[in-house]
Amino acid sequence: MKATIYKGNKTFSVIDKEIAEPKEGEVRIKVAYSGVCGTDVHIYHGMMDKRVDIPETIGHEMSGTIDAIGEGVTGYELGDKIVVRPLDDRAVKPSDKGFNHICEELKFIGIDSPGSMQQFWNVPAFTLHKLKEETDLKLAALIEPLSVAVHDVRLSGLKEGETAVVLGGGPIGLLVAMVVKDTGANVVISEVNPVRIAKAKELGFETVNPAEVDLVAYVRKNTEGRLADVVYEVAGVQPALDVMTEVAGIRARIVMVAIHGEPKPVNLFKFFWKELKLIGARVYEKEDYEKAIQLITVNELPFEELITDVQPLTKIQEVFENIDNNPDGLKVLMDCQQ
Amino acid sequence: MKATIYKGNKTFSVIDKEIAEPKEGEVRIKVAYSGVCGTDVHIYHGMMDKRVDIPETIGHEMSGTIDAIGEGVTGYELGDKIVVRPLDDRAVKPSDKGFNHICEELKFIGIDSPGSMQQFWNVPAFTLHKLKEETDLKLAALIEPLSVAVHDVRLSGLKEGETAVVLGGGPIGLLVAMVVKDTGANVVISEVNPVRIAKAKELGFETVNPAEVDLVAYVRKNTEGRLADVVYEVAGVQPALDVMTEVAGIRARIVMVAIHGEPKPVNLFKFFWKELKLIGARVYEKEDYEKAIQLITVNELPFEELITDVQPLTKIQEVFENIDNNPDGLKVLMDCQQ
Repeated sequence: MKATIYKGNKTFSVIDKEIAEPKEGEVRIKVAYSGVCGTDVHIYHGMMDKRVDIPETIGHEMSGTIDAIGEGVTGYELGDKIVVRPLDDRAVKPSDKGFNHICEELKFIGIDSPGSMQQFWNVPAFTLHKLKEETDLKLAALIEPLSVAVHDVRLSGLKEGETAVVLGGGPIGLLVAMVVKDTGANVVISEVNPVRIAKAKELGFETVNPAEVDLVAYVRKNTEGRLADVVYEVAGVQPALDVMTEVAGIRARIVMVAIHGEPKPVNLFKFFWKELKLIGARVYEKEDYEKAIQLITVNELPFEELITDVQPLTKIQEVFENIDNNPDGLKVLMDCQQ
Repeated sequence: MKATIYKGNKTFSVIDKEIAEPKEGEVRIKVAYSGVCGTDVHIYHGMMDKRVDIPETIGHEMSGTIDAIGEGVTGYELGDKIVVRPLDDRAVKPSDKGFNHICEELKFIGIDSPGSMQQFWNVPAFTLHKLKEETDLKLAALIEPLSVAVHDVRLSGLKEGETAVVLGGGPIGLLVAMVVKDTGANVVISEVNPVRIAKAKELGFETVNPAEVDLVAYVRKNTEGRLADVVYEVAGVQPALDVMTEVAGIRARIVMVAIHGEPKPVNLFKFFWKELKLIGARVYEKEDYEKAIQLITVNELPFEELITDVQPLTKIQEVFENIDNNPDGLKVLMDCQQ
């Protein structure tokens, strides 16, 4: 079978590898599609070389079918369509208080252990979520990032009729905006990249370029002074941190989705003054996956539009180089069937 | 009657003034005690001269009795013991979403309008909370700051058996610690001032000096790795902001009680990683006052110990100068009856 290998130094190779039997408690998946995540791009940039056991196959946004079933695994049949929730929480401790998805000793499959950018992939069966027979496997590769968005919206407690501002119109920002819309809330996307603005508008989202329009004045006017009930910080840049506390109304919730590697200035006075809440949100829980699977299966949101490229595994080096050269793209999928 | 007047430039005077009749909807209060708040000290330092209509009587932590009842006021009798919740929310708007206590046009009585550091004080009747006949009027002057603590603990959702860390052992920090204890949770106070440490220990609180002991290691050990379930940031200094995200366990809540005048560096990565919540908390709501009144009336917590000095109105200049020279003190009350 074909497997891609990250070798460090911005280099991937594609190798021919023997198909392994699943161990006890595992299944072998015939991978259909594997999406390229921002984290994969970080790995490619060498930012996570301490954590990734190079040379290593990466990838964790995927869809596929059951190809072989290891000893002790029940509830699955060959050919079942599945996705993997790539969280290995087997080292959970009482001090994790039951929040297994972010337990202290969490291993992330596809970063801390081999990932899905290969034709066949063996994983523990407890990571599986079954899809419907009618679920589209290409769209199903979006279930992992969509679960992030579902988790973000769930933790924010967003209610129908509220107004949400999404700071950042990349793949996760757009998925958050879709889930917000599905909740029956109003959504405004703030984005500076003109190609992404055009894409967001094409998807039907009210989109503001904060470099050209005063975002706070815009939202104030459109909400009769209430401002945003929920803000999703998905941009990861200082101007987003500066505006998040301004565009938030009284008792608004700000969800911190972006990863800020360094401590950054935050206007804590506004947290006090307006009794704002900042809610950290990381990955997803089981119920978020179930909700994302349902959304993908009924396919009433413009998920298809997020997939801007699909390439065979053999093109992996080109795909990552191209992502660096073209920040306008959204989600690229590796087709692992060829 | 005697009234104190803040004249700007770190100066108070005490004047003789005619006792005024209460207007429609108002009552006249015979003030018993009026506590000195950190905000009053800010005013004395000239930090709020733009907001205070100098010359002005300040003060808002008080207790007293009804001395005269204006037209249209019902439900009160002369001599009733009362406290004032000094929030004038008459300009509330729909965009305040019902959070009247922090409404955009909120006027704070004692800052934006005349306060309680005088013998008689006229206020709108809607600001009153009635005390029990047996409520001690000296302790009752603590109801306003205690309501802040009750509000902080309520917004944190603290549960019995959880562990809270209070960063800062001043008057509000100690009141928060008392309310935490009353909730049945464990509490550790972090404080660097040796006199305040001694006081906190005397009050029976586990107290750590983070300049001498590794606070995070200490809390980790005492919670079997869970770390704090709730952190109250009452110190208002950068080291507290640095440690709050470290001492907080998975899904912990951090309540922002302190006022940080400038944007300050915050470790947002920890918010993401441990799914922390930051909760801004400002003043109090009606139910917080009712709870504080109940706590003061049953008097089972060491409130008396917080009152480190009581002085007549005529000593106001000395009182404020002394607070500057002696950062070890806790709550000073002005006795407005003499």
